[in-house]
Amino acid sequence: MSLTAKKWILTKQFAGVPKLENFKLEEEAVSLALKPGEIAIEALYVSVDPYMRIFPLNVGDTLFGDQIGRVKVSNNADFPEGTLVLSFLGWRTLTVLSNPEAPAVFGPLVRKLPDFGDLPPSLALGCVGMPGLTAYFGLLERGEAKAGDVVLVSAAAGAVGSVVGQIAKIKGCTVIGSAGSKEKCDWLKELGFDHVFNYKETAVDEALKQFAPGGIDLYFDNVAGDFSFAVLQNHMKVRGRVVCCGAISEYNTDNTGRSIYLSVIGKMLELRGMSMVEYKNRYSEGMSPLLQWVKEGKLKHRETITEGIERAPEAFISLFRGANTGKIVVKI
Amino acid sequence: MSLTAKKWILTKQFAGVPKLENFKLEEEAVSLALKPGEIAIEALYVSVDPYMRIFPLNVGDTLFGDQIGRVKVSNNADFPEGTLVLSFLGWRTLTVLSNPEAPAVFGPLVRKLPDFGDLPPSLALGCVGMPGLTAYFGLLERGEAKAGDVVLVSAAAGAVGSVVGQIAKIKGCTVIGSAGSKEKCDWLKELGFDHVFNYKETAVDEALKQFAPGGIDLYFDNVAGDFSFAVLQNHMKVRGRVVCCGAISEYNTDNTGRSIYLSVIGKMLELRGMSMVEYKNRYSEGMSPLLQWVKEGKLKHRETITEGIERAPEAFISLFRGANTGKIVVKI
Repeated sequence: MSLTAKKWILTKQFAGVPKLENFKLEEEAVSLALKPGEIAIEALYVSVDPYMRIFPLNVGDTLFGDQIGRVKVSNNADFPEGTLVLSFLGWRTLTVLSNPEAPAVFGPLVRKLPDFGDLPPSLALGCVGMPGLTAYFGLLERGEAKAGDVVLVSAAAGAVGSVVGQIAKIKGCTVIGSAGSKEKCDWLKELGFDHVFNYKETAVDEALKQFAPGGIDLYFDNVAGDFSFAVLQNHMKVRGRVVCCGAISEYNTDNTGRSIYLSVIGKMLELRGMSMVEYKNRYSEGMSPLLQWVKEGKLKHRETITEGIERAPEAFISLFRGANTGKIVVKI
Repeated sequence: MSLTAKKWILTKQFAGVPKLENFKLEEEAVSLALKPGEIAIEALYVSVDPYMRIFPLNVGDTLFGDQIGRVKVSNNADFPEGTLVLSFLGWRTLTVLSNPEAPAVFGPLVRKLPDFGDLPPSLALGCVGMPGLTAYFGLLERGEAKAGDVVLVSAAAGAVGSVVGQIAKIKGCTVIGSAGSKEKCDWLKELGFDHVFNYKETAVDEALKQFAPGGIDLYFDNVAGDFSFAVLQNHMKVRGRVVCCGAISEYNTDNTGRSIYLSVIGKMLELRGMSMVEYKNRYSEGMSPLLQWVKEGKLKHRETITEGIERAPEAFISLFRGANTGKIVVKI
């Protein structure tokens, strides 16, 4: 028996903001006559994340990234039919694999999902998955957040930022968030952020003079660019920490910006790059508390769901317009 | 009895490279009829350092900075006549003080020098003073240098860099240094640097491809700018550490540069700002091993001596041409 899989491939390298012409949808026949050890995974949800813009990929490659799937057919006792899995299979609807636990960028290519109870498994792409884990390890390990810290989160209504802010509140920090619309800011207030501001309406200098007159202990940065330059130059405490987690304002540029060295020196700052690659073997350690907090109602989330594999590029491109509140997932 | 003191004052704020017109030499009468507790300090050497370019100073202020002096007249039992002192009195020849241990930027305004034996006390402006201490604490505490690290030092023939490289060798690191002339590079080889290159003749990418094909563990950065951008983007190991100690290439600019966020994120770098302000209460802890290493011949130094308080601005300005090898001091 054979089925048709759909997959998106890269047709030309990105230049500036990704466009629909960078992608092409292809079909391929997938045989379900599995050899010993093989499994066939049917995609339920695929993820679009900003980091995909800057990850090396060759023309002709299938678009990569996290995917939630279900084992449709199995010839492998470790992954019986019906198993829900988090994989790195990307933007494709059906995949046959002979070695599900082969190493991939963020650890094994395929992981079994922990028990989500009544919660939707798509959370494993969001607040209990890579973005949530990025927030968890980035804030607590790279950022060494502790009770009493004044924490600033940029792109706070995004998939990572919204979790950062909530964990910081759980840990007893004062949390300031920036976002780009009134609706996002309203949501952040609901999430318990102490202060929020719409950076399109209130300049970062003005907002932080008001909300953090004594300075920022820990800046969890998802945006970089001019916003972060102002934060570093004018608002960090001496020996402040900056978790450099994302630079979405720079992903589509030729990587020029303003120098931050004088601020780093003058205030003895520590800038710490954050990538989940470093924590790839610690997924379960982070997923347990995240899942627990979601079940207890302490960690809230929003998903923006786009329906259909055909719309994956569109969902991806929308990230760079700031269109999303919370996590964007593509439902297959 | 009264004597004439000479002092340099700032006549207008710096814009771009400092010029002679930013400074004016003034004279003032200093009475040596001291009140109880007062001391009169006669300058022996005054220091010029790059950081003075970016420190806030008002028009009319006396140029600040480290000074080695001798107590000429004393009415204070703690500082008897003849005591050699390291002070923050700057570019002036004679100073009367009522409270020598008042707090200044880098700790007490006046410190007694430890016993230098036969060594010249001017070393307390260089490899056993603030630049040496910056190297010591910056490399070992902020940079956490350890045996086996591949360490890159920019401006390696400067007052800080030349000490960084030698301490790194003492600690068992492999050390690469960059400098701007053949003469400087030759000196670095004499000091025991494993690899040196003249960045004006060999591009940093080319040099580091040859000398550090496996990447840099620890970059002790004194220059910032394009040089450092290339190091961060192309030559750091994952989880590499960067001690941001100086940014001499940016001090005379309007502080624009290139963005380093993508490298910080992609390689999970840690950038750590370094300023001696943080270590102001730990001078003696650092001066002891530095002095010991000098006495044992393990820590070598060069001084560029300019004679006469009248030439202090000229000596300062020469820093930004890269004219110095080792430490520049002005002998009074």
